[in-house]
Amino acid sequence: MNLATSLAALPTPALVLDEARMMRNIDRLAERAKRLNVTLRPHLKTAKSVDVAHRLFGGATGPITVSTLAEAEVFHRAGFADILYAVGVAPAKLERIAALRAEGCDLKVILDSVAQARAVAEAGIPALIEIDSDGHRGGVSPGSPALIEIGEILHRAKALSGVMTHAGESYNVAGAEAHAEFAERERSACAQAAESLRAAGFSCPTVSVGSTPTAHAARNLTGVTELRAGVYMFFDLVMAGIGVCAIDDIALSVLTSVIGHQPDKGWTLIDAGWMAMSRDRGTAAQAVDQGYGVVCDVEGRPIPDLIVTGCNQEHGVVARRPGTTSEPPDLPVGTLLRILPNHACATAAQHSHYTVLPEAGGALLTWPRFGGW
Amino acid sequence: MNLATSLAALPTPALVLDEARMMRNIDRLAERAKRLNVTLRPHLKTAKSVDVAHRLFGGATGPITVSTLAEAEVFHRAGFADILYAVGVAPAKLERIAALRAEGCDLKVILDSVAQARAVAEAGIPALIEIDSDGHRGGVSPGSPALIEIGEILHRAKALSGVMTHAGESYNVAGAEAHAEFAERERSACAQAAESLRAAGFSCPTVSVGSTPTAHAARNLTGVTELRAGVYMFFDLVMAGIGVCAIDDIALSVLTSVIGHQPDKGWTLIDAGWMAMSRDRGTAAQAVDQGYGVVCDVEGRPIPDLIVTGCNQEHGVVARRPGTTSEPPDLPVGTLLRILPNHACATAAQHSHYTVLPEAGGALLTWPRFGGW
Repeated sequence: MNLATSLAALPTPALVLDEARMMRNIDRLAERAKRLNVTLRPHLKTAKSVDVAHRLFGGATGPITVSTLAEAEVFHRAGFADILYAVGVAPAKLERIAALRAEGCDLKVILDSVAQARAVAEAGIPALIEIDSDGHRGGVSPGSPALIEIGEILHRAKALSGVMTHAGESYNVAGAEAHAEFAERERSACAQAAESLRAAGFSCPTVSVGSTPTAHAARNLTGVTELRAGVYMFFDLVMAGIGVCAIDDIALSVLTSVIGHQPDKGWTLIDAGWMAMSRDRGTAAQAVDQGYGVVCDVEGRPIPDLIVTGCNQEHGVVARRPGTTSEPPDLPVGTLLRILPNHACATAAQHSHYTVLPEAGGALLTWPRFGGW
Repeated sequence: MNLATSLAALPTPALVLDEARMMRNIDRLAERAKRLNVTLRPHLKTAKSVDVAHRLFGGATGPITVSTLAEAEVFHRAGFADILYAVGVAPAKLERIAALRAEGCDLKVILDSVAQARAVAEAGIPALIEIDSDGHRGGVSPGSPALIEIGEILHRAKALSGVMTHAGESYNVAGAEAHAEFAERERSACAQAAESLRAAGFSCPTVSVGSTPTAHAARNLTGVTELRAGVYMFFDLVMAGIGVCAIDDIALSVLTSVIGHQPDKGWTLIDAGWMAMSRDRGTAAQAVDQGYGVVCDVEGRPIPDLIVTGCNQEHGVVARRPGTTSEPPDLPVGTLLRILPNHACATAAQHSHYTVLPEAGGALLTWPRFGGW
């Protein structure tokens, strides 16, 4: 059975994952991490899938990053023991974290305040201090007195695991040169913070950095022990827009059916609205605004200049990219299309499972995914 | 146990539903429909909850609207038999629709093309013809030859149920006067279409109109038989921004914990990011941009000038509304806040259940919600 026939049996909209592309993306970063001589700790917030998690490590398990305790619990049950919960910890969550640790999960947290450090030290949970390397969100400056104050509280409780940073601002610049600069900011901020802590007499074994753009551009990771990235497994239009991947590397798409036309407006209506695509408009501020996604034929080949220009809950509007004039193909009611997403994390989150085009060929697979906290 | 103590036992982020506010919103529109002498057919795409559905009809069932076949299936199993699937039908879905009808569900579809009408007529499924009353999305013009052509195909198959429209553009104007104008466009377009079909010799029993803004503003529904609306049960900041409700009518909020601060920037970080709030920025183009939501204390009282100005996956940034100077309260790590959403449909879709503050008081309830297609 060919691909179009297999996909025609699915109810639309449906989330489709191209395993061969995903494996290529996984292998690419694993090789980079090896060359840079750091441990790769993939972030599973994008995939939220045990099937994907096992494919990161050749069927085995390894160190991972998560964004929710629900992820930590699911992946621990699936055999993953070395887990970093990379969202600043709320003290009310410590009981649940301690319960997971009591089950044998080496779950570590991150924090950037004295108040959190006191609560975490009292609970005896290992923590990494979040370092602010680019003004993006949280973290303490590598040179701030707060770093040493927090470090001392954790050190005394034998709870200081290390330091970490995430250069989220790297998403807002394009090109390997710019990403390499952010990678160097991550490296130097974290290496400096680790040196300050060590100079104060505290052990700081882990120095963890990363984001998908910086992980793919870093040239030198001296002083760093591990690298984190998440969306690279699937990639998306935002990553393609800043040059981290090509459109052909995007492993995720939403299968949709044509349900109507407004010929006077040049609109084709599809049954993938924001419920299937998410409301993410991450390419809106990029050089090429991809609307709510790039329209491909059922085989996954982009149709020139055709994007999703608007979304309602269960309706998408497909039209030519503003300023273009290429003639779109005839797309009768019932035509199957595949839409490449702006932001894989957000689009995947709208779905309960992946329909997988297996790398080895053969029948489509279903891989469950989960959500919640 | 008081509200703050009850909510403190929940993991954050969590979706909170104030049942008393919801019942007030439900009663308000039910009374309007009665006064306007039309049947109310609530749209359950926002709630996706059997518990909410039963509360629309005093514990009984009634006519409903849905946006997915998954909703039709769940609500039919819960006892709802009269269902309108209000997204233009893809022919590949007819088999599943026929199966549901064979189980006793009076499920009707909508369409706006000859191709769909032929497929639906062949399957013998009753359909409403979608009328374009405001250029918003789908539908045929009430005066177009296509209307009669489609009507004839359905009529011959005894599958013509009526006509319907949705003035989605009413969301983009503010005030009862403007909404009443869109309500009149809905009414006149549908009444004209129904008259044309009847003049051609076809029966057209149902004339269905509605959107939350127009349903609350319509003054005269002569020729209309039923009214549809969805988000009104919960309301949200978009609806408040165009004057359909007050901020105090919003029944939905996201409970979140403070997890950090960047005092130099005036930022408080919370554990509700776009995964909990959605990426919807529906107030961005309104007179007052509410960011990703209005920040309330744990009791649900808005904190002056405090909004969620930015979101990452599991992080929200709380800051003062640009241009304001009121002093925000001290919000230490661990403080519980509640965020009112821009768009209730999108925010609710990010969660697997509601934590309900019961109208009758007492312990919090959990109402499941569902997604998918």
